[in-house]
Amino acid sequence: MSRLIECITESLEEEIEEEHYSLENLGKNILKKVRSKHSYQKGEISFVSELPIIKKTPKSKKRTVELHEVFVKVIHDGTWKKVLRVEVIGNTLCPHALEFSGKTHIQRAKGALEIECEFEKDITLEEMIDIVEESFSSEVYTLLKSEDEAHVIETMHKNPRFVEDVTRRILERSKKFGCRARAECISYESIHRHNVYSEGEI
Amino acid sequence: MSRLIECITESLEEEIEEEHYSLENLGKNILKKVRSKHSYQKGEISFVSELPIIKKTPKSKKRTVELHEVFVKVIHDGTWKKVLRVEVIGNTLCPHALEFSGKTHIQRAKGALEIECEFEKDITLEEMIDIVEESFSSEVYTLLKSEDEAHVIETMHKNPRFVEDVTRRILERSKKFGCRARAECISYESIHRHNVYSEGEI
Amino acid sequence: MSRLIECITESLEEEIEEEHYSLENLGKNILKKVRSKHSYQKGEISFVSELPIIKKTPKSKKRTVELHEVFVKVIHDGTWKKVLRVEVIGNTLCPHALEFSGKTHIQRAKGALEIECEFEKDITLEEMIDIVEESFSSEVYTLLKSEDEAHVIETMHKNPRFVEDVTRRILERSKKFGCRARAECISYESIHRHNVYSEGEI
Amino acid sequence: MSRLIECITESLEEEIEEEHYSLENLGKNILKKVRSKHSYQKGEISFVSELPIIKKTPKSKKRTVELHEVFVKVIHDGTWKKVLRVEVIGNTLCPHALEFSGKTHIQRAKGALEIECEFEKDITLEEMIDIVEESFSSEVYTLLKSEDEAHVIETMHKNPRFVEDVTRRILERSKKFGCRARAECISYESIHRHNVYSEGEI
Repeated sequence: MSRLIECITESLEEEIEEEHYSLENLGKNILKKVRSKHSYQKGEISFVSELPIIKKTPKSKKRTVELHEVFVKVIHDGTWKKVLRVEVIGNTLCPHALEFSGKTHIQRAKGALEIECEFEKDITLEEMIDIVEESFSSEVYTLLKSEDEAHVIETMHKNPRFVEDVTRRILERSKKFGCRARAECISYESIHRHNVYSEGEI
Repeated sequence: MSRLIECITESLEEEIEEEHYSLENLGKNILKKVRSKHSYQKGEISFVSELPIIKKTPKSKKRTVELHEVFVKVIHDGTWKKVLRVEVIGNTLCPHALEFSGKTHIQRAKGALEIECEFEKDITLEEMIDIVEESFSSEVYTLLKSEDEAHVIETMHKNPRFVEDVTRRILERSKKFGCRARAECISYESIHRHNVYSEGEI
Repeated sequence: MSRLIECITESLEEEIEEEHYSLENLGKNILKKVRSKHSYQKGEISFVSELPIIKKTPKSKKRTVELHEVFVKVIHDGTWKKVLRVEVIGNTLCPHALEFSGKTHIQRAKGALEIECEFEKDITLEEMIDIVEESFSSEVYTLLKSEDEAHVIETMHKNPRFVEDVTRRILERSKKFGCRARAECISYESIHRHNVYSEGEI
Repeated sequence: MSRLIECITESLEEEIEEEHYSLENLGKNILKKVRSKHSYQKGEISFVSELPIIKKTPKSKKRTVELHEVFVKVIHDGTWKKVLRVEVIGNTLCPHALEFSGKTHIQRAKGALEIECEFEKDITLEEMIDIVEESFSSEVYTLLKSEDEAHVIETMHKNPRFVEDVTRRILERSKKFGCRARAECISYESIHRHNVYSEGEI
């Protein structure tokens, strides 16, 4: 086992000295180096990280930093494949209650998009995050001045959605990638103790 | 160590054959039995469980089972003490946005009440749960027919609360116990990625 | 959603009044009841539990209760299938160091066996636990008197094993079931900060 | 709330541009900046990180990188205080079985040292890690060639220890700091399903 640990450690240390265009490329280079030192039939490397995206708040146009969970896996078994996954916080506003009683309930939701494709496919984590964010009742922000908060609330009320609506929208917008995509949405219901969950695949 | 494990196991097995009025009493009996077999200077036993409470939904009057997290610790170091803690799901409706823009945001919140007192003090987990539930914008239910849902939404809109309001109300209502009480409220904000947290003690 | 929750709650409450031969049967009955009340294309129910097994310690023949993690999933999509999984604590004693230096290192390991098969297949969680336990360097006990401890240590030294040996043995012994089986072993190394992991499938 | 978030974000962004001698100093500067923008009675900031330490393996003298969990909290309520905590992986070799039967069992253990003191006290996380590492039966390494592995095994056999021995040694060596110290050790027993735990304070 010590040779395997040595070659993983060396490969990691060599690669983190270099600049990389993406986590996928870093992963591929590490797997290549490991293989040249210690042959394998199938190799996988996984990264879990947070991706910060700098935005402007919708009305006051203040600078805000938004963090998203991202997962990248590179697989080498003769061919090269990758799995990309983003998890994004948003919200749902219940269409049923809005229609039934004029008022409604709102809650935090988390949406996920996972794509599995050949390594060379050109898909960025940033565009995946956009697809999920645009599928909620509204996107959310770390910083919100009062006028921004009013705008977010207005947006939510214009876009009532169930979790299954969010999942369908994510999948609809992911068709353009032309590969296997899986979407999930979980809502932390504000009127129930339980969460509500939806998943789908294309 | 084997004698300690034997006496803990035996004490547990003897006690779970008996009926107990409360988790505290079960814990006290186990600590007493352990002590008679294996002396100690300080002994503690902790229980983590879910307490089901059967209720009627507010309008349709259907039977619904609500689960709450409860924690009980019994401490014996010459005197007998206990720590009781409940964690209850509810919600907050933002007073600031409601006032500022007429519409507002709503989210799930979790409230906690923890009480530390002499063992003999007569406090039930059920009344602690009631105190936390009544401190939210509204209580929540596992089962809600449309008319119940409308009622819950109405109640939330009548009781806009920040997390610090929830914490203060829990503490206010816990004064009657006449002992050290600690309250917490965390809200899973629907317009932010972060949670908002409040805590206090009397 | 309220109708779904009502029918799940009712089905659960009716079924837990009955005696069941196995978790699988309980799950199947619940899925059947839910379907008669609220039709679905595919239904799944999962149970996570601890299964206590009462044994005698190897030498002093004392009674000891051993707890194992078990997972049962029942799937209904026209046909009935089930997934059974057990996770069992044991240990590995390093063969390499024993040969190289006469002394060696020992550590806790966790083995898992997961079987996916048609519902009617007759496999018990207890025999799955046996298969995993017998694949370690030695089985472990909650209670061990000094003579039992010496016996366990002796057994470990007679059966030096790497994690990949444990995985292979689990799979070898699972062939008799004649269905898809997956085995894993993870060791919490006593000479390294990292864990060592092995997995395989038949 | 938006002003608090703005001032925390700004303070963080300004400070991470600077070089800092320690996590404590980074924390103190952030708390100072936050206070100048948004007054508070009591402020706390906590860091959770991994501290990599580069070492040589004991015999083959290879370079190896060892990661340790570290926690730093800075508290400002008029005076400045700090809490430093390290968690270090090691092992215990059972003295009882070694004496009773010549052979013994060995397992991974995790030791912790937590120190609470005035901010100006000069204590490094590195010396705290050293104290915990030297208290085990042996220190552990990410990389071990066969000769290093034999050396680690030899060291463990020369230093049989229970978890309570590890805790006592950590506290004994922490007396020199002259402040409140708390030590813990947990062992992931290789012959039992349960862990064994010890804690103490000076």
